[in-house]
Amino acid sequence: MAKAVVLLSGGLDSATTLAIAKRQGYTCYCLSLDYGQRHRAELAAAAKVAQSLGAVEHRVMQLDLASFGGSALTDTNLAVPTTPVAGIPITYVPARNTIMLSLALAWSEVLGARDIFIGVNAVDYSGYPDCRPDYIAAFEHLANLATKAGVEGAHLTLHTPLIQLSKAEIIRQGLQLGVDYALTVSCYQADAHGRACGVCDSCRLRKKGFADAGYPDPTPYR
Amino acid sequence: MAKAVVLLSGGLDSATTLAIAKRQGYTCYCLSLDYGQRHRAELAAAAKVAQSLGAVEHRVMQLDLASFGGSALTDTNLAVPTTPVAGIPITYVPARNTIMLSLALAWSEVLGARDIFIGVNAVDYSGYPDCRPDYIAAFEHLANLATKAGVEGAHLTLHTPLIQLSKAEIIRQGLQLGVDYALTVSCYQADAHGRACGVCDSCRLRKKGFADAGYPDPTPYR
Repeated sequence: MAKAVVLLSGGLDSATTLAIAKRQGYTCYCLSLDYGQRHRAELAAAAKVAQSLGAVEHRVMQLDLASFGGSALTDTNLAVPTTPVAGIPITYVPARNTIMLSLALAWSEVLGARDIFIGVNAVDYSGYPDCRPDYIAAFEHLANLATKAGVEGAHLTLHTPLIQLSKAEIIRQGLQLGVDYALTVSCYQADAHGRACGVCDSCRLRKKGFADAGYPDPTPYR
Repeated sequence: MAKAVVLLSGGLDSATTLAIAKRQGYTCYCLSLDYGQRHRAELAAAAKVAQSLGAVEHRVMQLDLASFGGSALTDTNLAVPTTPVAGIPITYVPARNTIMLSLALAWSEVLGARDIFIGVNAVDYSGYPDCRPDYIAAFEHLANLATKAGVEGAHLTLHTPLIQLSKAEIIRQGLQLGVDYALTVSCYQADAHGRACGVCDSCRLRKKGFADAGYPDPTPYR
């Protein structure tokens, strides 16, 4: 079976992505980033999700992006917005997806994996630039120039199975594949127990997704 | 004065790159990566170089790439080659430049910098894929899609002032700009005092560079 590196935040989208990679027959190596996020509970969620969906390994890399600051997800002096905002919100973490994909690229090369999965979505999302199809295409192009494997003729594919789905479609697909969404943490300000605020952008998108999909929302709200 | 993020390994090339950025009028923020490299002495060298060339800040990020393995620079069970090898050598660190550029991208966005400098060279180099002009162009393209700054119309430039220079030309330029190469560490297996082996690929390129430039080599060999 081919190996794949799956970026796993511990949220709804990445859990669904892992289930899809698994269904497609990949042996899944999951990678999470402990970057100083305020919703650190997502990392414990990621470990549970990886185990429940049969990943062969789950690795958490440590990298102190909070030392750069500039985001409400890493700087607790900046409030997480609880109502919709115009433009790219303050919860954007500079270059986070580029950093995470770079780490996935490094690990995939050592593993001999030719496939990386990331659960970005450009429909029901927070408007982050590094979730858009153009960005993903640019990273895939880069990845094939960056590596020894690429130079030697192996093609690396960046899979984004959710990119054009609505949140409700993602949830329906995940439920069919056996994802237990009660294990996942999406909230930008989840407490240490993983309980959600219910009002941040990520909670609002998730709530609406379950409502639109017609399934009960298993999220523990505080 | 415009700000720039300068990737600084502590070696000859990155020191020269910092001197060039400074001469071009940038306020320089230097970034190094403590990634589990066996030649950790380069980090102490980077701190000295940053100070000697008037960087306003020098930051060292910690990231355990040694946990991935796959390179003689992070796995002490793999020997550093001491004679020329065909193809991409075992000292290649998977995705290292992509990871370091991603971190530079994150920091530049928080700083409001629009310029990143990296001392890659595609002439007298070890044949690493992530030092080639095509790769650099791909990263610059990605960077402008990845960030809030890019979306909002700011153009980010990735500067590679050494990319087409020989090692001798780099050294001549650096000496004109006042770089003290005695502070720099290039050796892939420098000891804790920064003393060089004299026989690894990096040492051989450096030695030949000083010889070709007609300047005495200030490197402390052990």
